[in-house]
Amino acid sequence: MNDTIPSISDITDAALAERLQSAIDNKTKPLGALGKLETLAVRIGTILGSEAPMLEAPQILVCAGDHGLAARGVSAYPSDVTWQMVENFLAGGAAVSVLARQHGLALTVVDCGVRRDFQPRPGLVSRRIAAGTADASTGPAMTAEQCAQAIANGCEVVRALPGNALLLGEMGIGNSSSAALLLSRLAGLDIGACTGAGTGLDAAGLARKRDVLREVLALHSTATEPLDALAAFGGFEVATLVGAVLQAAEERRVIVVDGFIASAAVLVAQALQPHVTQRCVAAHSSAEPGHALLLKHLGLEPLLNLDLRLGEGSGGALAWPLLESACRILREMASFEAAGVSRKDA
Amino acid sequence: MNDTIPSISDITDAALAERLQSAIDNKTKPLGALGKLETLAVRIGTILGSEAPMLEAPQILVCAGDHGLAARGVSAYPSDVTWQMVENFLAGGAAVSVLARQHGLALTVVDCGVRRDFQPRPGLVSRRIAAGTADASTGPAMTAEQCAQAIANGCEVVRALPGNALLLGEMGIGNSSSAALLLSRLAGLDIGACTGAGTGLDAAGLARKRDVLREVLALHSTATEPLDALAAFGGFEVATLVGAVLQAAEERRVIVVDGFIASAAVLVAQALQPHVTQRCVAAHSSAEPGHALLLKHLGLEPLLNLDLRLGEGSGGALAWPLLESACRILREMASFEAAGVSRKDA
Repeated sequence: MNDTIPSISDITDAALAERLQSAIDNKTKPLGALGKLETLAVRIGTILGSEAPMLEAPQILVCAGDHGLAARGVSAYPSDVTWQMVENFLAGGAAVSVLARQHGLALTVVDCGVRRDFQPRPGLVSRRIAAGTADASTGPAMTAEQCAQAIANGCEVVRALPGNALLLGEMGIGNSSSAALLLSRLAGLDIGACTGAGTGLDAAGLARKRDVLREVLALHSTATEPLDALAAFGGFEVATLVGAVLQAAEERRVIVVDGFIASAAVLVAQALQPHVTQRCVAAHSSAEPGHALLLKHLGLEPLLNLDLRLGEGSGGALAWPLLESACRILREMASFEAAGVSRKDA
Repeated sequence: MNDTIPSISDITDAALAERLQSAIDNKTKPLGALGKLETLAVRIGTILGSEAPMLEAPQILVCAGDHGLAARGVSAYPSDVTWQMVENFLAGGAAVSVLARQHGLALTVVDCGVRRDFQPRPGLVSRRIAAGTADASTGPAMTAEQCAQAIANGCEVVRALPGNALLLGEMGIGNSSSAALLLSRLAGLDIGACTGAGTGLDAAGLARKRDVLREVLALHSTATEPLDALAAFGGFEVATLVGAVLQAAEERRVIVVDGFIASAAVLVAQALQPHVTQRCVAAHSSAEPGHALLLKHLGLEPLLNLDLRLGEGSGGALAWPLLESACRILREMASFEAAGVSRKDA
């Protein structure tokens, strides 16, 4: 199995980071006055290995899949919404479709295992494992082979995409449960703190979800290794995203992390290959309470705090112009010398 | 004097706000899942009086002026940086120039009273009151007539600009002192809490700045009315921005508020005409400690928290794509009905 996991190198480059910071400090503005945008510029420069980084042909990848556990009532919406939203992505009517058009981001939807067959069409890639995962409350959501295949699919899909930036997105009714279970198991956190209302459970629904997830966690108490946990808790779209993250990291693409579920895929990838997060930019911290815990565990600081809880890659798309700005600051702002601006009084 | 202050109406429209919220709730996403972007969409729709708001020909206005008080060492940079940065804005090398290009924002620089004459050129509007304000620690920064003239200038400049959105920007070495003084006086806050490091004072510099501002505040203890305070504390660029805000509010343009100094201009405008803030969107909360206090006083919630402290309109430009997104969500996202997506389980 571990044959399919690419090895991700350490890209720390103290000399480059220093040159990047020095370039920023020489721009016509008070030292540090662009705040987190400066940190972001250094990070992107480091990922792309450039003092004048340029983001090219950015790709949003929306991985979709269904979850057997949804039958246990862990979501406010029925499973059918997964395929309906796939249609909506492709028709251009979903939030992420609108935002992708706004920012010129290419959008690819991957059917990783939705409970419905789709007609082939532009923008849709079929990498189906099965018609939804098995119910994680009665056994593993997927077999080890299915899990390995989904990861391999994610690698393959990214390999075929152009550009040097990947924005993660997902769709799958029930997948905030997978994310909560993965966070609890891999970060060693109580499942209660990891579980939120997802798409909008009421208090009773949330209590029921917590009970179900506690039960699932107990059932799979031996699934402590990252791949075992991923197979136990699902889903196909999360596993495909794990592969996408690993491949993008190997290629040194800038990985724009969206909400709770996309972050859970990064969590698994990071547990397999710790240097993965060096390539990541956290777009936002969502309203789903587990997300802040997950980002903290990954050591990623979010750019936006807009109480989003939609997924799809919508948060990544909203944050995208900030990544562009960070690169343009490096490439286009004048230095004190070039602009003839006086420095700070001694 | 009050003849020159336009009267700003209450644009509250409960029926429109309800239609906007209902349109958002019918979009294909869980209720409230776009968080603060939804609030923003309702706000922009209300300002523009439209259920399908469209932002047109957005304008950044960078008002520049010098401050007599700068001679008292309240800034980390020399006054010459004001004119040097005006040159940098016009040459396209400043942060706001770069961000304006990125987002297609028109950029107009207004010389409101810089201590240097500029050659006329495209993008520069001359509305000079004098070569910098007087030293506020020895008398009022400007006369009542100068203050009225600067406000009238701001109205006139905006009247000549196309579009339905105005992004506020400013440049003026020493103007975080004006902002701190205005905040302290008009919001009744202690000057110590309102005063920050500005462009980058060290601890000793900050202590000196606080002492100077306390002294200035005491000197002008009778300047309690908004226009008296504005004349006492300056500057020409702040007063010009007050006029710009009032004019934009009267025309129901969307006013994008930048950092501490731009917000201080909104504070004065709001003290004169309380409904002004209905037209405002706070782009960000800056690292300057008084800014959060000021936004709270105005009742505005910031979109970004990136520890910016640059001014120029840079924060407004960085937040701009979020305003665009909010409008596109309203205009372009599919409804549940149109997309054939199932609603939440009952």
